[in-house]
Parts: sequence; C-alpha cells; structure tokens
Amino acid sequence: MFAETLKKVIDNVEGGIGSVIMGLDGIPVDSYVRQTDRVDINTIGMEFSFILTQVRKAAESLQVGPCEELSVKAERLLLVVRMLTPQYFIAVALAPEGNFGKCRYLMRLAAPRLVAQL
Amino acid sequence: MFAETLKKVIDNVEGGIGSVIMGLDGIPVDSYVRQTDRVDINTIGMEFSFILTQVRKAAESLQVGPCEELSVKAERLLLVVRMLTPQYFIAVALAPEGNFGKCRYLMRLAAPRLVAQL
Repeated sequence: MFAETLKKVIDNVEGGIGSVIMGLDGIPVDSYVRQTDRVDINTIGMEFSFILTQVRKAAESLQVGPCEELSVKAERLLLVVRMLTPQYFIAVALAPEGNFGKCRYLMRLAAPRLVAQL
Repeated sequence: MFAETLKKVIDNVEGGIGSVIMGLDGIPVDSYVRQTDRVDINTIGMEFSFILTQVRKAAESLQVGPCEELSVKAERLLLVVRMLTPQYFIAVALAPEGNFGKCRYLMRLAAPRLVAQL
C-alpha cells in the first residue's frame, strides 16, 4: 500500500533510485527500488535510522524542536529523509546529480498519504 | 581570517544566524554569529561534528564515497554543513524559513577560499 506512493515519488524525480519507509529502530515498513543494481535501500535506511536517532538527540539537546528533514550528499549518492511521525521516516536515494528540490517537493506532497496509513 | 568569509555568507543569506568552521573532533577554528541571542553556534557545531563522524562511517560502510554536504531541518533551525577537507567542515545555522538554496550556493563559493587557509 505504501509502495505505490513511493513509486510515484521515485519515478517522477530525475535520478530517483529507491525509497523506503522505516522505523527509527531500523525495521523497514515498505520500499520501492527503480534501479536494483545500484544500492540496497534497506541497508541505507538502516544506517540512517541510527543517524536520525542521533540527530533527534542533538535537536533535543539544542532545544530547536523536532527534526523534520535531513539530507546527505555523498560522492555517489544523495539521500533525502523526511520524518513522517516521531517514529517513522521516509528515505529517498537519488543519484548525486538527481533533482533534490523536486524530490523534497514530492516527498512533502506524499507525506499526508503515507502518514494516514502508518 | 576565516570570520570575514563566514560573515559574507551569513550576511548575504536571508535568515542567516551564524557559521562555524570546525574539526570533526568538535574543536572550532573560527566562527561568526549575526544574531547572538538565538543560538550558540559552537555548541551546534559540536553536536554535529559527532553526527558527521557517524555519517562518514555510514558512507564508508555503504561505499558511496565521502560525505560532501549534510543538512538538517528542525522546527526552529535549519543547519547546512559542507565538508571542506576530510577533517574540517563549515556549518551554517539559518532560521527555518531561511534561504536554503542561496546558503548552499554561497557556501560552495566560499569553500575554495576557506580550504586554502586550512
């Protein structure tokens, strides 16, 4: 049920590779991958579930309110994460030259539909 | 010597609060703050030096090449980080409604000057 929404995000953004909905405990809810040969989206999600937990602690310590979005650009991967609830997030992997702005926009559009199903 | 370049970034971006150049060990090199009442830029940098170290480990583990940029949007703070060398980064704190795109652009412009002095 989530995969269809994830597919809409990935297939409509230039450079879209894959997306996962996951809990901060690293357990995936659902995922969709367009280019299976490039990355393991669940492994990426798991690595970043730990980092998001650390970011949440930092945000608490700095008293700047809850973390809403995170993005990381590495040499060969662009990762965009959006918190859906305090426990669940959506992560989208893009090629480094992918359309970051459109990705964030589509994730924001998709969020209410995803949240309603969580 | 760094502060002048940091000032140029912060003063030219809507919502700019402050900026710091810091090592991944959490030790600041130089900083500039426009709105002293809002945040402690060194404390923010320190919190994220730890997170950047974790992101670097994740990037290594995922074999996606070195981390180049990281951004975090919390309810009351937008933080944009750019690695300058494998050990040093620049972090810019913006108001959440600040101009993220312009901030990234100005950081990219400033990077060569900062790197040359590190």
